[in-house]
Amino acid sequence: MRKLVFVIISFFNTAMLFAQNDDSIFIRRIADEILVNGKAYENLRYLTKQIGGRLAGSPQMVKAEQWGLKVMMGSGADKSWLQECMVPHWVRGGQDQARADYRKGKKTLDIVALGNSMGTGTKGVRAEVIEITTFEDLEMKQDKIKGKIVFYNYKFNPKFIKTFLSYGDAVPYRGQGASRAAKYGAVAVIVRSMTHSTDNNPHTGAMNYIDSISNRRIPAVAIGLRDADWLSNLLQKESVHVFFTTNGHFLPDTVGHNVIGELTGSQFPDQVITVGGHLDSWDVAEGAHDDGTGCVQTIEILKTFKSLHYTPKHTIRFVLFANEENGSRGGDKYTEEAKIKREKHIFALESDAGGFTPRGFGFTIPDSLFQKVLSWKELFFPYGGSEFTRGGGGSDIGPLNRTFGTTLAGLSPDSQRYFDLHHARNDVFESVNKRELELGAINMAALVYLVDKYGL
Amino acid sequence: MRKLVFVIISFFNTAMLFAQNDDSIFIRRIADEILVNGKAYENLRYLTKQIGGRLAGSPQMVKAEQWGLKVMMGSGADKSWLQECMVPHWVRGGQDQARADYRKGKKTLDIVALGNSMGTGTKGVRAEVIEITTFEDLEMKQDKIKGKIVFYNYKFNPKFIKTFLSYGDAVPYRGQGASRAAKYGAVAVIVRSMTHSTDNNPHTGAMNYIDSISNRRIPAVAIGLRDADWLSNLLQKESVHVFFTTNGHFLPDTVGHNVIGELTGSQFPDQVITVGGHLDSWDVAEGAHDDGTGCVQTIEILKTFKSLHYTPKHTIRFVLFANEENGSRGGDKYTEEAKIKREKHIFALESDAGGFTPRGFGFTIPDSLFQKVLSWKELFFPYGGSEFTRGGGGSDIGPLNRTFGTTLAGLSPDSQRYFDLHHARNDVFESVNKRELELGAINMAALVYLVDKYGL
Repeated sequence: MRKLVFVIISFFNTAMLFAQNDDSIFIRRIADEILVNGKAYENLRYLTKQIGGRLAGSPQMVKAEQWGLKVMMGSGADKSWLQECMVPHWVRGGQDQARADYRKGKKTLDIVALGNSMGTGTKGVRAEVIEITTFEDLEMKQDKIKGKIVFYNYKFNPKFIKTFLSYGDAVPYRGQGASRAAKYGAVAVIVRSMTHSTDNNPHTGAMNYIDSISNRRIPAVAIGLRDADWLSNLLQKESVHVFFTTNGHFLPDTVGHNVIGELTGSQFPDQVITVGGHLDSWDVAEGAHDDGTGCVQTIEILKTFKSLHYTPKHTIRFVLFANEENGSRGGDKYTEEAKIKREKHIFALESDAGGFTPRGFGFTIPDSLFQKVLSWKELFFPYGGSEFTRGGGGSDIGPLNRTFGTTLAGLSPDSQRYFDLHHARNDVFESVNKRELELGAINMAALVYLVDKYGL
Repeated sequence: MRKLVFVIISFFNTAMLFAQNDDSIFIRRIADEILVNGKAYENLRYLTKQIGGRLAGSPQMVKAEQWGLKVMMGSGADKSWLQECMVPHWVRGGQDQARADYRKGKKTLDIVALGNSMGTGTKGVRAEVIEITTFEDLEMKQDKIKGKIVFYNYKFNPKFIKTFLSYGDAVPYRGQGASRAAKYGAVAVIVRSMTHSTDNNPHTGAMNYIDSISNRRIPAVAIGLRDADWLSNLLQKESVHVFFTTNGHFLPDTVGHNVIGELTGSQFPDQVITVGGHLDSWDVAEGAHDDGTGCVQTIEILKTFKSLHYTPKHTIRFVLFANEENGSRGGDKYTEEAKIKREKHIFALESDAGGFTPRGFGFTIPDSLFQKVLSWKELFFPYGGSEFTRGGGGSDIGPLNRTFGTTLAGLSPDSQRYFDLHHARNDVFESVNKRELELGAINMAALVYLVDKYGL
């Protein structure tokens, strides 16, 4: 009996070994193709330099959609199309400007209006500044807020090794800060940028007016770190007034699109694997790492599968999602239509954490399937993407999991540099390294290949 | 019996668990100290911006040594001193210039003389160019070499994931190319830079005249990739002459120093752990990643141990080595003096692969000790440095292993960006990310701590 068990185990081990060898050989071919013939970097150059920032509703959004559709077709999709969805249309409306007035003089401050915020109008807003370090601090000082500009100076925590934890920790000040301050009569808010960069670039990003907290919609801006520290130091010594003008406002919702390319499955055409990034970006930069890199990596996988004549068993959809930054309408639409059409979505992968050197993937997945995925881990080791952790996915694919229970994965690149440029003017093509970008695409392609081959 | 074994194993496991908890707590304290109070980035700013490139024998070398000694003392070394060694003194001697003459016109080429090469003098060298792709190609074309400039256009292989393998593959063309071409009568060589960067910066680095191959010492330069590709394309169509001037030459050897700081061991003062980087750099840039980062990481570990009141059991030496780039005299001297003084060197760690996000360490270590080191691996996982591989160390600590059999380790940062700037004019402070630099120091400090605590 023990001998039989041994023979059976040996057989399975050998079978597994052969399978693993086939897989490691095919993944090596993926890597060689991307490293030698890859187009992700040149595609990114076009998207960032020829089109640029592409906020939902902007003319650049339209150009980017047309570009995406063309590249999907040129990369060998069996089908490609635009999936229409209505998107919000927030515009910055002009240049954001700020100045501090203090005892000894005036100082220009480097600010940027938060996305979705209402502008001050041409008159601007001028008031004394009160520094608030935490929401608890705000509650303690609620009697002193009225008529003032609240300056949230909550620091991006340097102790988290994974910087997304610092972001999650700090971002409520950007998201809810305005309404919470408005509740106590503040006339505007200035938020310390969500970054530990060493420069002074302010970082924008979505904010929301939360009517259940306050129905007053006050202007909201982010400030660069050097200016934030300067302001904080000065406030220890004297009162400071800040004057700023912003012009943000909403226009009526407009038509946007998810850009979709498809390789139709040879065995299970009705079972869908989705891989994507989001095509929109904030307007202040070129949207290189957020999320041009995710888009061109997605297209690179399509191109690579075609170049290697890989015929997928399942249908694979390559999706450039609309409007992740200030509405998530693209991701919502994709799932809504899948529900209407009763599609079966077995797996979705998103790259939306920057085009940096890959570390691994985060999975939203049942325990039993995670064991299966873990058995593939060694295949990723040579390409840097073997850290498989629980939790993860992406904003745009999240609805698939919530609606269908679809297993999700998110590419986890090294996170040290991301918040140096996230939503700031330095998120440009030059900040992306060609090989780091390509290694991300290699690891993503390998994961899609394994899910397609072995199912989930 | 089995029960007893179980009890014993349980006991060891529990003891190990407690030890591991202590260790993970202390390493977390190291990380917090470096991420919150670290000085590595500001030290690097001074070294690169105030001192700059610091080739052996240069005035900047002297300034850097004085700076290093001062910082060692200021960081809390029990002792610190300069260890004298004679160093070679190669100087560039002026600006390197090159021009291609072809049918339709002239084109300036971006070149840099290779380190240790003899200049052309003011007259320059002008000759027809012959492209050579490999040393085999050179042998095949040996009859066509005489009187020509050999253009080695061997490509940096993009297929290696670890870029140091591409470097090892390509670097013989830089190191031996001149003598091999001189053997067949070439008058000079132009070498394609050892990089897969997307820019046109030429990359210098050491070359050697190998008398056993040829006693003719011909000028040698590196060329940027865009110019190399332009030249190669043109040579498919027509003959091209290149004119270039370089002025490199050797002055007499001069006095240099290793900069050493020491924490004297409380239990085993006669057993030495060494951690270091090299203080010298090529002259064309600021020597930020090569190897300013290794130097400031080394100093950071000293500073951190002092801040945390960590009293090492073994003597720990923090060493900024002299002359790694074109002579290795500092590393040789350090081992020579250790031999004379009959010191016992149990472990040495070097950081000389850039200040990028850490991936792990490479070890030159006996099998039995590697098992011990592997048992620490999990402690490094939270800080990104848990890939423990065999093979590795550093040029400066290599002699310790060859002489005493000392166990070596080299920090392995992510290697994708290193050869974009290695020995090129863009190896400047701005290319270093503060947190990536700090994470390297954290992982190094953790390894030194564990070796000190548990021995090797």
